[in-house]
This record gives sequence, structure tokens and C-alpha cells, in this order.
Amino acid sequence: MNLKEAITKLYAWQNKLSAYNHAMSIIYYDGSTVAPKKTAGNRAHTLGILSEEMYNLTTNEETVEMLEFLDAHKEELEEKEQRIVYLACKGMKEMKKIPIEEYIAYQELLVNAGDVWHTAKETDDFNLFLPYLEQIFECNKKFAYYCAPEMHPYDYWLDQYEKGLTMEKCDEFFATLKKKIVPLIKKIGEAKQVDDSCIHGDFDELAQEKFSLELMKIMGIDLGICGLGTTEHPFTTSIGSHYDVRITTNYDKANFSSSMFSVIHEGGHALYEMNVADDFAYTYLDGGVSMGIHESQSRFYENLLGRSDAFVNYVFPKVCECFPEQMKGYTAQDLYRAINLVTPSLIRTEADEVTYALHVMVRYELEKRVMSGMLEVKDLATEWKKLYKEYLGVDVPNDREGVLQDSHWSGGSVGYFPSYALGSAYGAHLLHKMREEVDVEKCLAEGNFAPINEWNREHIWKYGCLKNPDELLKNALGEDFDPNYFTNYLEEKYLKIYNH
Amino acid sequence: MNLKEAITKLYAWQNKLSAYNHAMSIIYYDGSTVAPKKTAGNRAHTLGILSEEMYNLTTNEETVEMLEFLDAHKEELEEKEQRIVYLACKGMKEMKKIPIEEYIAYQELLVNAGDVWHTAKETDDFNLFLPYLEQIFECNKKFAYYCAPEMHPYDYWLDQYEKGLTMEKCDEFFATLKKKIVPLIKKIGEAKQVDDSCIHGDFDELAQEKFSLELMKIMGIDLGICGLGTTEHPFTTSIGSHYDVRITTNYDKANFSSSMFSVIHEGGHALYEMNVADDFAYTYLDGGVSMGIHESQSRFYENLLGRSDAFVNYVFPKVCECFPEQMKGYTAQDLYRAINLVTPSLIRTEADEVTYALHVMVRYELEKRVMSGMLEVKDLATEWKKLYKEYLGVDVPNDREGVLQDSHWSGGSVGYFPSYALGSAYGAHLLHKMREEVDVEKCLAEGNFAPINEWNREHIWKYGCLKNPDELLKNALGEDFDPNYFTNYLEEKYLKIYNH
Repeated sequence: MNLKEAITKLYAWQNKLSAYNHAMSIIYYDGSTVAPKKTAGNRAHTLGILSEEMYNLTTNEETVEMLEFLDAHKEELEEKEQRIVYLACKGMKEMKKIPIEEYIAYQELLVNAGDVWHTAKETDDFNLFLPYLEQIFECNKKFAYYCAPEMHPYDYWLDQYEKGLTMEKCDEFFATLKKKIVPLIKKIGEAKQVDDSCIHGDFDELAQEKFSLELMKIMGIDLGICGLGTTEHPFTTSIGSHYDVRITTNYDKANFSSSMFSVIHEGGHALYEMNVADDFAYTYLDGGVSMGIHESQSRFYENLLGRSDAFVNYVFPKVCECFPEQMKGYTAQDLYRAINLVTPSLIRTEADEVTYALHVMVRYELEKRVMSGMLEVKDLATEWKKLYKEYLGVDVPNDREGVLQDSHWSGGSVGYFPSYALGSAYGAHLLHKMREEVDVEKCLAEGNFAPINEWNREHIWKYGCLKNPDELLKNALGEDFDPNYFTNYLEEKYLKIYNH
Repeated sequence: MNLKEAITKLYAWQNKLSAYNHAMSIIYYDGSTVAPKKTAGNRAHTLGILSEEMYNLTTNEETVEMLEFLDAHKEELEEKEQRIVYLACKGMKEMKKIPIEEYIAYQELLVNAGDVWHTAKETDDFNLFLPYLEQIFECNKKFAYYCAPEMHPYDYWLDQYEKGLTMEKCDEFFATLKKKIVPLIKKIGEAKQVDDSCIHGDFDELAQEKFSLELMKIMGIDLGICGLGTTEHPFTTSIGSHYDVRITTNYDKANFSSSMFSVIHEGGHALYEMNVADDFAYTYLDGGVSMGIHESQSRFYENLLGRSDAFVNYVFPKVCECFPEQMKGYTAQDLYRAINLVTPSLIRTEADEVTYALHVMVRYELEKRVMSGMLEVKDLATEWKKLYKEYLGVDVPNDREGVLQDSHWSGGSVGYFPSYALGSAYGAHLLHKMREEVDVEKCLAEGNFAPINEWNREHIWKYGCLKNPDELLKNALGEDFDPNYFTNYLEEKYLKIYNH
């Protein structure tokens, strides 16, 4: 094998993997959106087989030989191939540590778990979901142990979602937030409360869908490449490459702002995925680099832009066009205040910017305890209620709005949640930096997202997975990340809204 | 290798193939229903790779060795495995005759052709589609030559869709139909015409969708396993196995009967697919045996049952519930006559039962000439118009309603059309036989499809691909198939409607 042959093989192999990814993503997307209800078993059957194929493709002798050859010659490779080989070797080595039967069984488990979680949530039945959740946590512990026996299993998974993240760093980060956020919530609680009646009412689903597509267009999303679906829990997925991306939302007939902000949130994810450099298509570099950076983009669009005074002023006439009856008598300022109402609540995805981090901290704390063997999975529902009372002061009336609200665990994601809070804080620092070059307020006031998107493309999106998240972030910020930009932003914005 | 090992290998291999089929079907289904418009290239990329994987899986040394071993020991196999091995050997031998690059290029061509056909139809631009259509016919000729150089290429493809079918048999079959149908159309043309105003109007798409789902339930289709989508051209596909089937329809706001009968038609296909014996899941036996038998089921439900007096009487109150304004003042008899209006027209899928076969004959004639080298692909649009004038007496005003109306050629299906006419005729003979055991009129009058479905399950559906179509048919009919049952049925029904 010479270098040129090995590189040709590398790309052929990456192409093949992307085809399997395409298949698995679309099976998942279809399953979450339009597939008939009783077909999960059939999908599990197929995904089990495709997972085995992917496992073999990642770990077979030919692949190992090719990757080891390229790794030995890495100095001679371009940056792009160097990074692909680095990620591939890392993935291949970890994959080889997981016994194939366990890997396949886990993939099948996840398909069925997703299905059972849906039913459990609908029927408020934690015990129905419990055996699946127990197996998922068990597998996460075992896989972490297989791959990195020297690490705490939760640190292993934190690092998987955000390279370099540890419980120690999380504890410090959350402590910084808590120190500012808890007194801020207290001050807000003592102030005159905001009237949010304008977002409540009866909003036709088709009108909401039309408005969602309008929002995507305003954000600069090409609808020819990015689709919009309806699911229980909104998500974004690319289908095989950044040339086909899907976002989903959920329409609440009683509150249009729920889908409005989930569309803007998922739209942020989609913009990131869609704008990776074309040169990276069909390789490991095609996609967001980490969950923290991904959430920095989604929460950037959702909150820092979407819930800003300037954007709400711009978009208000369009809201009135879609919901003329419901908006009668309200002003843009009413809408701005309504969508920024701060109040401790039950549902993370609908939480305001200020209390949001506390929702994440509940999940972080629970995951940490389960992964450390300090808490049994069967006690999660009860502990969830306790922590919501303790952190947010709210009583959780049922598991549907408690431990069953998020889809993450049913999809196998343990250690993902902290990246939401991290992403929010990354976003605030990025906005601070962006303002040095872009007149963000002017762009928002005009509904012109192009200069904002361009900045993000140049500093974040185009790199795909070429750099580690910390390197990417430092590169974009020109300094070390500092969570105080986030807490300062929250204080400034919300003390003004609440007239302090 | 011993027999037991070989059989285990056979099933593992069949399982793997079904997973690839699952992936390819869902990519196709997604692409036809909800995928964003500009993503066809991305799907073509993935389908190209998956086709190559399937090709390799079907023709690699290990597979060939396993199949040859089993073929040599076929006497020792059960009927089921015998048949799988027979079909697998046949497929493998043919596949090996097609050069892999050509096979992959063809799969990619089809994805792009489907996309271009959509645009060409929308914009009435035959020339846009022409280069793709030329390549498709060219590939069909070449592949036929590779697989069976001794056969006429059109005979080869007729046989692929309906085992044993040849141009000679088609010519004879169509001549039999023509002899009865042409005078029948003449008689009908001279009679007092039917008033079909009750099916025309303004019909809300959501109400049509609701009605479609209601029809599926009446037919005994389990909506937990069978989904309903919206596409330009209605179709049915199973997704990996008979445990997940999808049908699609197209809503014409001006005429609700268009989607009504395409749903019943596709529902017939779906019932066949869904009711193959469970034991055959994830093997070559899981699915309808031929296009002719498939169409015998779909057109059985659509016409012989769906357009019958008894069924229309049963379903009329439900039509009124869905479209109360539009049905005001009309009776079940008005609807029965309207949906059985006979008139030479432009669109095959909307043609009545009597003229339908003439639409098929146009396509059969054109395919035969192109595959024989007597007609150039570029002249198809013009010849289409000529034959419609000659066979049906209608002027084709554009290509959108002419040569571009059907999706079949864009999907690579050349030689498929005759099976529609054949299926209609099979269906009439099957109904004649079914009446010996089932009181079909009573079932329809009560909307009770269970005894009808049960007969079809026992005589047709459960066998999947276990038997050849001629054997299956003879088995179900207890005698040789006779197209005169069909022409007799047409004469009896339509002379009555037209008061002869």
C-alpha cells in the first residue's frame, strides 16, 4: 500500500460509512415523524443489522490496516486527512473495545426504548419505561468502562459530547451560573410580573406551520435542503451529508411561541450542519463538532437573537399576519415581554433563559448520581421531583411533565444535557465577539440574517469537525471562554424587563 | 459446509438483504413524500453506494458458494428454502451478468430521473426528461441482453414482471379484450350519458385525507402497520418486510373520487403485501409474486369491489359525512353512476374500467416498438398522441397529460404496464371463483371485508413468492385463467348502467 492508494481507500470507506449513516438517519427520522405506530420492531430489526455492518466496516482488518498505515504517515497528510484519520483511529479503537453482540443489542434496545418512551410519556407511566432506562444506563456504564476503564464513566460520556468536559469543570461552571442566577431569579420574583396573555389562545396548527416555514426563510435557511417535520420532541438531523437536513417541531395549539422558538432553535442547529465546508461532505468532518458548540448555535438563534427586542419588533407584523384574531390589541412590546417571562416551571424546552440552567442542573445531578452508583434508576422519578422542588421551587405533578419529558435518555444520550447550559454561555460570549464586526441589532431590526450567518459560517460552521471544540471556540473568541458574558447578559436584559 | 450451516447462512444473508431493502425503500419513500426538493443528488449518492453493497452481497464468492451448495442439495430442503434458493440462484446469476459499474450507474440514474421527471411533468417539458428516458430504455435493452441474449429484450422484461408473459401472449390477450371492449365502448357512446356532477366540486384536502383513512379502515387495513402519504403519483411499498407498508395518494381538490379510488387501489396492494405468511418475513418470499397478481388485487378492490353498487350504497353515508355540503341533493345511485362513467380520456389512473385497457395498450405498443428498435425514444411524445387518437379517439393537448403522466419509466419499469390489464382480468375470474364460497354482495353491503380478505389471504396473499404466478392463479381458480370472465363482467355491468 502506498500513500495515494491508502488515501483513496480512506475516502471510499468514508463514503460507505456516510451511506450507512444516511440509511440509519432516515429510518430514525421516518420513525419519529410519519411511520405507522406499530412498526418499531421492524425498524429495530433493520437497524440491528445495519449497526452490525457499520461495526464491521469500522473494525475489520482492511480498515484497521489502512488506518494504521495512514496514522503512521500522518505527517505527510493534509490537515483534512490528518483529522479524518485521527477521528477514525479514535472511533475504531473504541469500537473494537465493545463486544459486537452488545453493540448491536444496544442499537436495537434504543429503537424499542424510543417507542416505549413515547407510550410511557403519553400514559404517564414511568414503570413502563423503567426496564429500558435501566438497561440504557447500564450499557452506558459498561461501554464507558470498555472504552476508558481508567475514567469515571460519567466523565467519559461528558467528554464524548464535549471534548475535554469533566464533572469537575461542570461543577465549577454550574457554580458560577448559580451564584448569579439564583439572586437574579429572586429579584425578578419580587418585581411586578409580566403579562404573557398574548402568546396564549387558540392557534391553528396549519397557521403555525406556515409561520414556522416563514421563520426558517427569515433565518436564511434554504428550504430546498432543509425540511420541517412534526414530532413529539423537536430535533435536528442531517441525512447522510449536509446536503439534506431536517428539523422538527411540535405544535401547541394553546401557545404558538412554543413551536416558534423550537423552530428557531432547531433552525440554528440546521444552519450549522448545512454550512459545513462542501469539501467535507461524506466524511467524518461533515457535521457539528460537539454538542456544546451545537447548542451554542441553536440557543444563539433561539434566545440571543430570537428573543431580542430588535427581532421581535421585526417579526411582530408577520405574527399578526398569521394570527390576526389572536394578536388584536397587542403590541410588539407585549410580545417581547411575554416571550421573556421568567418563571420557575416544569418543562425544560419551554423554560426561560434565566431558569433554564437550573433545569439542566437537575438532569446533570441525577445523571452524575446514577452513573456513580449513588442513585438507582428506579428512584429517578422521585428524585426528579425532589430536585425540582429544591432548585426551582416547583411541584412536579406527574412523570409526564417530570422525568419522562425529554427524549434524550430513551435515545441513549447520557451526559448530553450539560452541553445545553454550556452552549447558552458559549453563545453569549460569541455574540459579544460578533458585535465587534457586525451590527447585530441593525441586522435583526431589518430581518437580515446574512451578515450574522456569514460571521458564524466563517468562525464556526465551515470548520465542521476539523478542530476540537475548545480550539474552535478560542479561535473564534480570540480569548478563553468566560461564562460571565452569559450571566452579565442575563442580568442586563432581565433587570431591564423587570424594571430594576 | 454442511446443510444446517448452509441454511443458517442462507437466512443470515436474506436478513442482511432485507435490511438493505429496508434502507433503500425508506430513502425512496421519503424522497417521494416529504424530503426537501433539492436533495435528490444526496439520495443518489447514497443509493449508489447501497446498490453496490447489495450487488456485492448478492454476487460475492461466499454467497455463490453457499447458494451452489444448497442448490446441489435442493432435494433435501423444505419447500420454503427450496424456493428461496431457486429465486436466489436465478437473481444471483442474472446479477453477475450485469457489470457492476453499469448496475450502480443505473441506480443513480433512476434517482435523478425520478427527480427530473417530476420537474418535466410540472413544467410540461418532455425534452428535459428525454436524455434520462433514452438512457433508461438503453439500459433496459442492455441488461436484458446481458441476462438473456437469446430472448427479445421486451419479452425478457415482460417475463420479469409476470413470469411466462411474452409479446405473443400479450398480443393475443389484448386482441381478446379489444374484440369485446371496442363494440362495448361504441354502444355506451350511443347511449344516454351519465351525469357525474356529484364527484366534482371543491373538496378540502384534509377532509379527503380523513376519508382516505376511513376507507383504509373499512378495507380492514391495520393503520398501525400501514401508513398513508401524499405523492405526485400514488404507489405502495413495503419497508423491509410486510410489517411496515406505506401507500400514497394524491388529492385532487376538484374531484374527491380520484383519491378515493387510488386509496382503495393502493390499499389492495397493501393488503397483499401485509398478509404474506409471517414465516416468510425477511426473505425473498416476503412480497407479492408478480405485478400481474399484484394488480389483480389492487384493481379487484378498486373496481370489482369499490365501484360496485353494493359498496357504494354502504359507503355513501360516510361520503356525506366528510363532504356534507357537496353531497347535498345527491343519492348513492348518483354516486354509483358518476364513478362508473365511461368516457375515453387522457389519464390512465383516472380512466374507467372499460376504456382502461386501451390506455394500457398504447403503452404496450410504444414500449414494444422502442424495445424492438422500431421507434426512437425522442419520438415517444408524438407517437403517444397519435395512438391516443387512434385507440381512444382523444386529442392529447400536452405532454404533461400525455407521455409524462406516469412515473413508471422514470423508475426504470419497462414492461410493467401490461400487468395492469392482465391484473384486471385475473381479478374478474378470481371474483367469479370467490362467489362460490363468499356472499360478496352481502359483505359489501355491510362494509364487512373480513370474509373477502380471508378468501384472498388463503388463496393468494399468504403464499407470497412461494409459487409462480401461473401456478398460484390456477391453484386459486381451479381452472385455467380465462379473460372472458372480465369482458363478460364489463358487458353486464355497463350495459345495465347505460340502460341497454
